[in-house]
Amino acid sequence: MNITMIKDAASRLEGHARRTPMLTSPFLDKIAGRRVLIKPECLQHTGSFKFRGAWSAVSALDANVRSRGVLAFSSGNHAQGVALAAHQHDIPAVIIMPADAPALKIANTRALGAEVVLYDRAGGESREDIGERLAADRGLTLIRPYDEPQVIAGQGTTGLEIATQAAELGVASADVLVCCGGGGLTSGIALALEAEAPGLRVRPCEPEKFDDTTRSLATGKIQHNTGQAVGLCDAILTPSPGDITFPVMARLCGPGLVVSDEQALRAMALAFLRLKVVAEPGGAVALAAALFKADQITGDAVICTISGGNVDPNIFANALSLLED
Amino acid sequence: MNITMIKDAASRLEGHARRTPMLTSPFLDKIAGRRVLIKPECLQHTGSFKFRGAWSAVSALDANVRSRGVLAFSSGNHAQGVALAAHQHDIPAVIIMPADAPALKIANTRALGAEVVLYDRAGGESREDIGERLAADRGLTLIRPYDEPQVIAGQGTTGLEIATQAAELGVASADVLVCCGGGGLTSGIALALEAEAPGLRVRPCEPEKFDDTTRSLATGKIQHNTGQAVGLCDAILTPSPGDITFPVMARLCGPGLVVSDEQALRAMALAFLRLKVVAEPGGAVALAAALFKADQITGDAVICTISGGNVDPNIFANALSLLED
Repeated sequence: MNITMIKDAASRLEGHARRTPMLTSPFLDKIAGRRVLIKPECLQHTGSFKFRGAWSAVSALDANVRSRGVLAFSSGNHAQGVALAAHQHDIPAVIIMPADAPALKIANTRALGAEVVLYDRAGGESREDIGERLAADRGLTLIRPYDEPQVIAGQGTTGLEIATQAAELGVASADVLVCCGGGGLTSGIALALEAEAPGLRVRPCEPEKFDDTTRSLATGKIQHNTGQAVGLCDAILTPSPGDITFPVMARLCGPGLVVSDEQALRAMALAFLRLKVVAEPGGAVALAAALFKADQITGDAVICTISGGNVDPNIFANALSLLED
Repeated sequence: MNITMIKDAASRLEGHARRTPMLTSPFLDKIAGRRVLIKPECLQHTGSFKFRGAWSAVSALDANVRSRGVLAFSSGNHAQGVALAAHQHDIPAVIIMPADAPALKIANTRALGAEVVLYDRAGGESREDIGERLAADRGLTLIRPYDEPQVIAGQGTTGLEIATQAAELGVASADVLVCCGGGGLTSGIALALEAEAPGLRVRPCEPEKFDDTTRSLATGKIQHNTGQAVGLCDAILTPSPGDITFPVMARLCGPGLVVSDEQALRAMALAFLRLKVVAEPGGAVALAAALFKADQITGDAVICTISGGNVDPNIFANALSLLED
């Protein structure tokens, strides 16, 4: 992993990924006690930054390999990113999802042109076995969600934009809070900023009980979440940082910041009220940290990502009800 | 009014107004039956395009005149735009609002640095009398919400961006649907496109029962709304097109498109689901027309504005409930 891969990914993404704006609000500045710059990747195609990594990985494949198609395991944002990137490359995409995934997510992924293969979580064949068989039969290439260099390079293009936009706004030194699951976005942004804006330091943000990266950075080795991967912030609930992403984060990032589910919901409500963007719970943890963990942050300004906006309307309405206080 | 004024306004707004992105969604394309390009001015500072016109007007004043301050009548988006533009110019702003305006709007306007003067709608002094007295006493300059050349020039900068962004996306010929109240945004965009993208034709969009501009364009002379200016689409409920805006619209725009309140709410829900942006009811009428009045539109693509996102959370939750169907 290096900056050249990220810059090459940026060239391939040009005209395909959206250059998201950098948002600000004097109301949020007041809550945080410092300037807050917000990078809303919820405005990216398919509603999350995952489209960048998916496009980067698909576009980096050898044309002959690519033409046979790609494969992903995901019921969420990565699935939609891979589906759209494949569709726009005019190649097949097979997405393997649990049979009990929400009907809307299955329908959305199909509508983006992918073939969805459902498997039974409870028993029988594992998704890995299904994937291996399909890949062998059809010559599909697996696109991993985060522990994959070209995916990390794609997510890193967010960091190139942050470097440019922060400089335009006169911010050369600040913490950059990144919503962190497996660490693809976090490590990609960190590599980009190391090269382009060394005064900006990346800090991963996670929800309580799923703070594997924060603990991994604190102890210097990969830690796992205990218990089941079910929680409000579903988009960023991964068992542990990746084998590729963790060494990058250990070198460049930290310490982590941890917020409660209620703080994530309050950040979603404030993003609605003050920025007019839709954040999903996992996509709001970095803004929550900027607003509600201000004492753990230093400097006159803070930058944070909103990593996605694919949220159930009922959960969103629930977040809005917190505004009545 | 001419293109030079709009280009001059764009120079003054550089680095102050936000260049909003152009959004798209394959899901919305499918509903509309053609490509839909969406210009989300809800992402502008203060949550609506009104900041552009306010900044343009304030920045165009002679420095000595400006330093004495500005005045506006508004309980809505224009108030917030003028308040922030004045604050950033470090000059006083006085906003005259009805005493029964929502507490949040009064608080927001004060938080942006303005002095709010409340008046009783029911009786006593009119807001015009109060405004004239304050203007005379303190040398304040009135900033009208739409029938004011420098305000129209500021709103027209939206049109310059649309011309560039549509060309980048390969759209040279299309209807441009604009949420229309008094016609400041509509006429400004129309003037910009006349000069920069003559294949793009502006069509004003309005809610049912408040279709004064549509009827004015159909009959060739200014028509008024009957009854009270109370409705869901509060941001764009004006009694009639303006004396300056109407001749521009009569020359360049039309025919108008009219949508129901329910269609506006459905467009808000789809903007949430597919674009991850927050639209207010009046700000969603153009998207509603693009999606639900497709038979009144011609061409392979349509462009529409989302003019603002300052909406009560309860109304927004109400719109989201339509997604369950």
